[in-house]
Amino acid sequence: MKPKSKRIAYLGPEGTHSEQACIVYDSSAIRLAFPSIKDAVNSIVSGKADECIVPIENSLAGSVTETLDILIFHKKIKIKYELIIPINHHLITKNQVEFNRIKHIYSHPQAIAQCKTFISRNLPNAKIIASMSTALAVEQMLATSKNESAAIGTKRSSTLNNAVTIGENIQDNKSNSTRFIILSNKDHQLTGDDKTSICFELKSDRPGILHESLGEFASRNINLSKIESRPTGESLGRYMFLIDLMGHKNDSKVKSAISTLRASSSMFRLFGSYPRYKIEEDQN
Amino acid sequence: MKPKSKRIAYLGPEGTHSEQACIVYDSSAIRLAFPSIKDAVNSIVSGKADECIVPIENSLAGSVTETLDILIFHKKIKIKYELIIPINHHLITKNQVEFNRIKHIYSHPQAIAQCKTFISRNLPNAKIIASMSTALAVEQMLATSKNESAAIGTKRSSTLNNAVTIGENIQDNKSNSTRFIILSNKDHQLTGDDKTSICFELKSDRPGILHESLGEFASRNINLSKIESRPTGESLGRYMFLIDLMGHKNDSKVKSAISTLRASSSMFRLFGSYPRYKIEEDQN
Repeated sequence: MKPKSKRIAYLGPEGTHSEQACIVYDSSAIRLAFPSIKDAVNSIVSGKADECIVPIENSLAGSVTETLDILIFHKKIKIKYELIIPINHHLITKNQVEFNRIKHIYSHPQAIAQCKTFISRNLPNAKIIASMSTALAVEQMLATSKNESAAIGTKRSSTLNNAVTIGENIQDNKSNSTRFIILSNKDHQLTGDDKTSICFELKSDRPGILHESLGEFASRNINLSKIESRPTGESLGRYMFLIDLMGHKNDSKVKSAISTLRASSSMFRLFGSYPRYKIEEDQN
Repeated sequence: MKPKSKRIAYLGPEGTHSEQACIVYDSSAIRLAFPSIKDAVNSIVSGKADECIVPIENSLAGSVTETLDILIFHKKIKIKYELIIPINHHLITKNQVEFNRIKHIYSHPQAIAQCKTFISRNLPNAKIIASMSTALAVEQMLATSKNESAAIGTKRSSTLNNAVTIGENIQDNKSNSTRFIILSNKDHQLTGDDKTSICFELKSDRPGILHESLGEFASRNINLSKIESRPTGESLGRYMFLIDLMGHKNDSKVKSAISTLRASSSMFRLFGSYPRYKIEEDQN
């Protein structure tokens, strides 16, 4: 099912959760790191990559709005696959060292926030130094001369840099996970256990209009796995709706619900149909 | 309508957009800075503050999930007011200096991301240095010895630090705004133009159940201004729903819709009723 030896673009640098998602998806692919989600997606348009993998939703932080905006903008880019990766943060140092000797902690502000309890219990006096990514944090930590610094990052960035992991899974919430999507010029054929992602803006904002629209799915027994209203970008008063539904765009009932909804929308995007991801093995 | 000389907790340090929201809400209040959203909210519980002001939604980045989680956790804390603040980023330096002399830019990774176009056009060779907040970025910039650094921050943090603003409103999207809510032990009385925020998890996830639930509002002609499904925190598969509806909990039709919905929910929270915010003046 999975493509082989493809060129897959991802949000770099090496050692990020995006790279890890890339490896889980297709370990034999040629991985190309890009400095932003936008650059990674543009690499498909320009032909530098065949597919790209980007985060779409985190269980703690919610939707990745940069990815949603790109999906709305690039009409021809489709979702062809999804996968869910557990997000685990680790405390990484140059050499083995006791917690109480650590004076500085490097990481991205979001990773710092997700490890707040661990830090206040074990490293209450360490100074926090912000980094642009967890992967850069590990590099910055290794560049310091003394053995008194630690970084919060992925196990892979520790391995890549021959560093030492002195604290495993230090995030406050142990079930933190991110949903990644694989984008391509085409979505996936029907497998029988699929999801479809759509986005639309309704022509009217009178009471009950969203309820009527959802009725198109309810009356056809189509389950929704996600619904989100999102400001259109122009203001906080006007909303678009993002929906993930169970089924493939080529299922007859999904097809008819979508065509009815499209008619009552001022903007409608079909982001793609793709196999529903089933979490099986430990991906730590 | 607004309380006077109250103690209002906010996400510090001074010079953040949260502090600015605090000033717009009640300029005569005693402002208390806290290091996290959680600490700011806890200050009401402990009696250190009368009210607290926290961000709930940004037009670019979406919901502030930390705030949502706290609202779900603290059953007795209610939303009593909302306000919308435009988010403008400025390029701040110690002294007047040409763009091409700037070698380092300090800011929070999110502010950097929101000013990407400006940076690549005007300061393509500057090195980016991450900070834990835009307010800290200004302090870090001022602490450097040479006149070759800039920070991206608020106008207020520039004024507070007697710094110079050499670039105004440099964010890519000029209509970036954040909705703040004021939390207290009680919500607001009925004014006739109100909103009510609720959160619930449905007992069943069969197809159509969300549609039926929204029917409670549609059939009573109650308009919704926001709907969001959010993973329950246990996994990305189980969702709770966050809804903002037009009307006050003491309006008879809102009261009856809520009581019906509560009966079909396994978890239900009424976050509060409060006056709908109307943007009037320039708050830059």
